Amino acid sequence: MIDPAAPPVIDLNADLGEGFGRWQLTDDDALLSVVTSANVACGFHAGDPATMRRVCELAAERGVVIGAQVSYRDLAGFGRRAMDVPPDELAAEIAYQIGALEVFAHAAGARVGYVKPHGALYNRCVHDAEQAAAVVAGIRMAGGGLPVLGLPGSRLHRAAEAAELPVVGEAFADRAYTAEGTLVPRREPGAVVHDPGEVVKRALGMARDRIVTSRDGTRIAIAARSLCLHGDTPGAAQLARRVRSELTAAGVRIRSFA
Amino acid sequence: MIDPAAPPVIDLNADLGEGFGRWQLTDDDALLSVVTSANVACGFHAGDPATMRRVCELAAERGVVIGAQVSYRDLAGFGRRAMDVPPDELAAEIAYQIGALEVFAHAAGARVGYVKPHGALYNRCVHDAEQAAAVVAGIRMAGGGLPVLGLPGSRLHRAAEAAELPVVGEAFADRAYTAEGTLVPRREPGAVVHDPGEVVKRALGMARDRIVTSRDGTRIAIAARSLCLHGDTPGAAQLARRVRSELTAAGVRIRSFA
Amino acid sequence: MIDPAAPPVIDLNADLGEGFGRWQLTDDDALLSVVTSANVACGFHAGDPATMRRVCELAAERGVVIGAQVSYRDLAGFGRRAMDVPPDELAAEIAYQIGALEVFAHAAGARVGYVKPHGALYNRCVHDAEQAAAVVAGIRMAGGGLPVLGLPGSRLHRAAEAAELPVVGEAFADRAYTAEGTLVPRREPGAVVHDPGEVVKRALGMARDRIVTSRDGTRIAIAARSLCLHGDTPGAAQLARRVRSELTAAGVRIRSFA
Amino acid sequence: MIDPAAPPVIDLNADLGEGFGRWQLTDDDALLSVVTSANVACGFHAGDPATMRRVCELAAERGVVIGAQVSYRDLAGFGRRAMDVPPDELAAEIAYQIGALEVFAHAAGARVGYVKPHGALYNRCVHDAEQAAAVVAGIRMAGGGLPVLGLPGSRLHRAAEAAELPVVGEAFADRAYTAEGTLVPRREPGAVVHDPGEVVKRALGMARDRIVTSRDGTRIAIAARSLCLHGDTPGAAQLARRVRSELTAAGVRIRSFA
Repeated sequence: MIDPAAPPVIDLNADLGEGFGRWQLTDDDALLSVVTSANVACGFHAGDPATMRRVCELAAERGVVIGAQVSYRDLAGFGRRAMDVPPDELAAEIAYQIGALEVFAHAAGARVGYVKPHGALYNRCVHDAEQAAAVVAGIRMAGGGLPVLGLPGSRLHRAAEAAELPVVGEAFADRAYTAEGTLVPRREPGAVVHDPGEVVKRALGMARDRIVTSRDGTRIAIAARSLCLHGDTPGAAQLARRVRSELTAAGVRIRSFA
Repeated sequence: MIDPAAPPVIDLNADLGEGFGRWQLTDDDALLSVVTSANVACGFHAGDPATMRRVCELAAERGVVIGAQVSYRDLAGFGRRAMDVPPDELAAEIAYQIGALEVFAHAAGARVGYVKPHGALYNRCVHDAEQAAAVVAGIRMAGGGLPVLGLPGSRLHRAAEAAELPVVGEAFADRAYTAEGTLVPRREPGAVVHDPGEVVKRALGMARDRIVTSRDGTRIAIAARSLCLHGDTPGAAQLARRVRSELTAAGVRIRSFA
Repeated sequence: MIDPAAPPVIDLNADLGEGFGRWQLTDDDALLSVVTSANVACGFHAGDPATMRRVCELAAERGVVIGAQVSYRDLAGFGRRAMDVPPDELAAEIAYQIGALEVFAHAAGARVGYVKPHGALYNRCVHDAEQAAAVVAGIRMAGGGLPVLGLPGSRLHRAAEAAELPVVGEAFADRAYTAEGTLVPRREPGAVVHDPGEVVKRALGMARDRIVTSRDGTRIAIAARSLCLHGDTPGAAQLARRVRSELTAAGVRIRSFA
Repeated sequence: MIDPAAPPVIDLNADLGEGFGRWQLTDDDALLSVVTSANVACGFHAGDPATMRRVCELAAERGVVIGAQVSYRDLAGFGRRAMDVPPDELAAEIAYQIGALEVFAHAAGARVGYVKPHGALYNRCVHDAEQAAAVVAGIRMAGGGLPVLGLPGSRLHRAAEAAELPVVGEAFADRAYTAEGTLVPRREPGAVVHDPGEVVKRALGMARDRIVTSRDGTRIAIAARSLCLHGDTPGAAQLARRVRSELTAAGVRIRSFA
């Protein structure tokens, strides 16, 4: 539980290493100077082995915690195509990805510190108890009792708690929230907050005051120990730096949850 | 070094888990009752995560040592297409595969005990010093100082020795040898020994007497601590069982090198 | 429309070429002596180019009509994992597969004569209007106004009719039907008919009398111009041969719908 | 043959559509306003179906000829890893790619006008007669007697001529040449010309005067009907535009060879 009297502390996480071979996407070097947790792609939606190695080395050098950003096996769709993967297969696929990343984390003198599903798997595990349980089974198969970074209240978090894995809730400063505290689906207008000043303001509210204003004007409580910053859009690294510096200026401590 | 006065001991290894999703190839269950070392496919030429998991569980139950059968990334060619992979990428690809397998070995209460390259990578690393060094770099990256199973005298073994990794030489009871002690290339006539009785006889010679007769009739010394049995042909499991039982009957102890 | 007074005529179709590289699954040679329509895998769930070429050559030699068995991009799951592919991407993926197969059909002196979705895509397009429309858009993109082989009454057939593509209904002699004439889902007990004599009897009923008995004993009308025979189980080719010979003996003409 | 008295005419070609799913690489829109021949990636090293479709539509709209940029099956290595693919498999893989592209060319009201191997396959087919013959066999399998764009004097061109396929020679304005008229390998210093002014000057020499100065100062004859412009580096589209405008200003006509 978060102690409301404690000085505000927040983790910053971002998706990294999301290139594949010749293709690059995320500005890994810049973002690794901003975030405290790196969601490293593990080869199923992005992330070739050489990139995984390099990102792990950079993260370890800078003290950024390495997380396994696990996904459906879907390079062509970048892991954004929800898939009906049978639970046994899904669990094994999750474990496979964590193990592959672990080797590079170890080689860099670090370890995998948490797991966060990517894209369609993330979204599906908000509501789908069967797939959420399969993901948790895969995390347990990989050993080490890794914390699960995800949406507070999601099926994924419930399954993780049932399996006695630590859970870490995250919030999104650039996404609109409903009055119920869920994310406005991307297809709806206003789902994504584009104005940098507004993103910074919301990040401050989330991290310092544990509050966000929903799209219909209600102030709702946010119990997040991590803020997710996006790294795959132009200007993303710059915005992430600004969020970090304004949080720091406002007295929020930036620190990994791990 | 092998002590010539010691009672004969030999390891038996076979490629396992070489299906992929819906497709099956190797008779994993039968062969895991015969061999002492299982070369488990790690997903690059064959071996989906669910299969890797199942093979590791079976191997652990039966006390068979789990080895990482690493390959070029080539499902369409089953890892039989030699590839000019840049050394840094190859090393990372090797480490990735070992890490992925490790997770299933651990989950089964075991660990990865050695590494053996598959197919075209195996053949290439007999002569190609650069790729051999890259494979060894990948094994070291994966940690644990894993032994390298391969052809005695190969570049791979030399690179492993230079890196202070243990090496284990293997021989092939169903392959013809030249007078120099190298394998007759598969494209040449008589390269593969098909007669089961002859395979058994050669296995006995190799394991008990450390001798094989080359294709031109020369008796040559074979310093192998493991015999490779093939598992992807009809009757393979039956032949493997026969080899094992005749070796045992002849006083050869069957034991993992690990 | 099927003329009830006409002598009974039926097409026999089977999934073929469902190996990939080193892996084989379907007994293509045997089945191509039985069926009149070959659903050839196009590389997305199975079917490497060399296999596609070989199956097309065999089919053309024997006068079997070549169909494009299109699928989600899912080798690991054999196309059995339903996927939320955006319509524009799905349409292009369908067209891609048809085009790739066309080249081998042409090289064999034939042409692609129809399209049939595979596995999870087939099942999804029974009910999902959006994906059905995307598949039809892909077929139209590929040109030639190809007939669409599928479940009578499916969304796929409705979308095809709306796009003025010919539709061909198929029935499954080895699947149980509900009283409403839909297939009993595979997960339910009794969904698959395993007894060969029963399969033959149902095939006769479907082809000659256009009737099948549902699992609750109702006799229901079946308006199918093609029977789907399965080719990926042991004994499949033998059963297919028996179905064909008993249909012929009963006066049913076996002829492609194309 | 090129008539030395004819007014200078040159084709401009560039690699296009080299993204994959979420990843983009080439500035397709900008380059399609400059080149007369588009080497469209066909899915084996890059190029998902939706991208292939879009590039074909844009190319057709602007009258740019569509070529099949065929590759080894190697997304992870972007087709830059030479592979020992057996000739029969390679031929079928080439045909598959051409067929897949054809469908999008047709849908856009155009057709595939030529074939150009990509990356490691291109380089290998300069010297490797077996693979060159396999590529040509694949082009013939695809039908239509497509012209083969490649290095003058290459094994690929010799194999194409032996098979009575048209050949089109290309030159590289941004690559250094040896005195023998071959390309300086990329690993050697000075292999790539980075100075835009120098690239333009060399393009002019190649297109207008059919001459290039080798790295040791010799002036050598260049018999190229096409200039290859690179599209995957920053500033590539701008440089391509400049090359085109200076060629035009110098009286060179820019026209597809097809």
